[in-house]
Amino acid sequence: MRALVATLAVLPAILVLAIPILAIPVVGVPAAHADDIVLRDMGSFHVGGRVVEVHGKQVREMVRVTGGPSAKFDPNGQYQVEQMYVQYFLPRDRKGTLPLLMWHGGGLTGVTWETTPDGREGWLNMFVRKGFDVYVSDAVERGRAGFASDDVWPGERIFLTYADPFERFRIGAGAGSWDPDPGKRKLMPGVQFPVDAYANFMKQTVPRWLDTDDAVIAAYTALVDRVCPCVLLTHSQGGSFGFRVAQTRADKIKAIVAVESAGAGDPARAEALKDVPVLMMFGDNVDLHPRWVAYRKLDLDYASAVRAAGGSVDVVELPALGIRGNSHMVMMDKNNDAVADVIARWLADKGFMSP
Amino acid sequence: MRALVATLAVLPAILVLAIPILAIPVVGVPAAHADDIVLRDMGSFHVGGRVVEVHGKQVREMVRVTGGPSAKFDPNGQYQVEQMYVQYFLPRDRKGTLPLLMWHGGGLTGVTWETTPDGREGWLNMFVRKGFDVYVSDAVERGRAGFASDDVWPGERIFLTYADPFERFRIGAGAGSWDPDPGKRKLMPGVQFPVDAYANFMKQTVPRWLDTDDAVIAAYTALVDRVCPCVLLTHSQGGSFGFRVAQTRADKIKAIVAVESAGAGDPARAEALKDVPVLMMFGDNVDLHPRWVAYRKLDLDYASAVRAAGGSVDVVELPALGIRGNSHMVMMDKNNDAVADVIARWLADKGFMSP
Repeated sequence: MRALVATLAVLPAILVLAIPILAIPVVGVPAAHADDIVLRDMGSFHVGGRVVEVHGKQVREMVRVTGGPSAKFDPNGQYQVEQMYVQYFLPRDRKGTLPLLMWHGGGLTGVTWETTPDGREGWLNMFVRKGFDVYVSDAVERGRAGFASDDVWPGERIFLTYADPFERFRIGAGAGSWDPDPGKRKLMPGVQFPVDAYANFMKQTVPRWLDTDDAVIAAYTALVDRVCPCVLLTHSQGGSFGFRVAQTRADKIKAIVAVESAGAGDPARAEALKDVPVLMMFGDNVDLHPRWVAYRKLDLDYASAVRAAGGSVDVVELPALGIRGNSHMVMMDKNNDAVADVIARWLADKGFMSP
Repeated sequence: MRALVATLAVLPAILVLAIPILAIPVVGVPAAHADDIVLRDMGSFHVGGRVVEVHGKQVREMVRVTGGPSAKFDPNGQYQVEQMYVQYFLPRDRKGTLPLLMWHGGGLTGVTWETTPDGREGWLNMFVRKGFDVYVSDAVERGRAGFASDDVWPGERIFLTYADPFERFRIGAGAGSWDPDPGKRKLMPGVQFPVDAYANFMKQTVPRWLDTDDAVIAAYTALVDRVCPCVLLTHSQGGSFGFRVAQTRADKIKAIVAVESAGAGDPARAEALKDVPVLMMFGDNVDLHPRWVAYRKLDLDYASAVRAAGGSVDVVELPALGIRGNSHMVMMDKNNDAVADVIARWLADKGFMSP
């Protein structure tokens, strides 16, 4: 009986000791629910760009909002152009040793990395969950970066038809594979792209200009100067930009994961990357599409040049790992989680993830 | 001594009882740190839009990526146009009884609601922290919504000079207040806009078309059909769209907070809003700018029409609450947190927040 009384008496003291534990970070229980995304911060910014002056245009009256008042519209003056947009997500349980910058491909925006067209999690969420500070951006002239007037960019912009990415991105079986009738489309063998949600993918496409490379590279360089040291995760045209920015910022870009890079860096400047480990990754059915055979050759030639200069380039063809059916849009494919794991293992092997 | 032994023996049992508490949601300690943002999910999607056919254009060869292979470019075919982009953040500790949809103003995108131009938290983060499921969108033809070619939208698009929003948005003291030299700019009395970061605000602006209202409203209506019942938080031109969509979706839009609405609904259809409580909010210095006097009159005339039809419209002029200096970009002003609190109190009063 005395023992029971003593036990009851000690209970409050034990609870008092236990309560502070609730307020201290507990490994494995960072949030209320195991599958929550717990962020120490999230936000966005624009970076880079320049101011241009436009003169000699006519001033006139304009009604800007239906039913609203008329007001003077003066198109002369200073314009802000060629900046880019960046959104960041910083997990509480940080395991990546450096921020991961995700650079999208041509005709697209940072939406590439978000929810897939068929509503599954994309690589943004996956890499935040893996513990990386992730910076998703819209390159110059795309999405939330905005774009300049014909006074500033006289060059042509192109728009994508439904047939274009279907045939070019190894979703369909190349030229002529698209048909408005789903029953008549010819698919790549075993393709993992969520074909039933192809219309949602088309909604993600944006127009792009053909002659803005210098502006895109200038803004990406400003981004690197702002948030790096970092690791780049690039896709398609973004790979070309990644390698070219790394040629002048190899001190800040500590590694590059180039997924299906459409174009590489300048082989004559490959030595710049001698201390930047690179992972080049390709999906399936590349050999069935001459366009991707050509890009892979460009990439592998560049890899050879980097290696000859003392650098390290790992090349992963996903089918060799038993991961099959990947289209050009690897991060949206139905097996995007398995591919993200391959990338995470490489980053861990290279020392960019703490255990 | 026997008591001490008994106490030690009971300790493991108490700890076993205590440990499950760590895994159960604990009010006030939802995450590892008090200021973390804890989300049960985040993601994005596109909604709405239509497919158009383009014929009779010339097919040609094109190099799309510098140094890449040439390939056929066929501009004929089906195009996806007039969809819109939506990004959502769903807090674990949900207090809002309905999702909050944030609709931006003209020449801007959903970035309006994110980090302010001078790097403070915007209303996206603030309302997620207050416990609302928040849906931030880019309206048709802006930002990540993408835009259509001249074949589809022959109308004019306008670009904003540095002078334009400075003079129109009550940052500067109206017409002629902008000067490239910061020392020569004339500011509105006590203005709370972060003037030193005005260039960062200009980087958020995007071109807009003048004749896409019908497409914008169609896509917003598709968004409402997908995620509502809901509450709208609109700004400027977005207010005009909010009221017009509500005219046909008053069963799904349960309340509207219209911040500095640039244009309202159709007074002849005001009865549609008789069961939709509305908060209209205006910043400071409205009387010093004829454009905003005109918009406020439009809004208040509409408010009268809604009230006459049996509806409820509360009007808040922030200076009357002692909140002074607000520009048109209220959500970016230095006192944006105080204004967010006013909105949250109204939502709570109307029953859209659980205690």
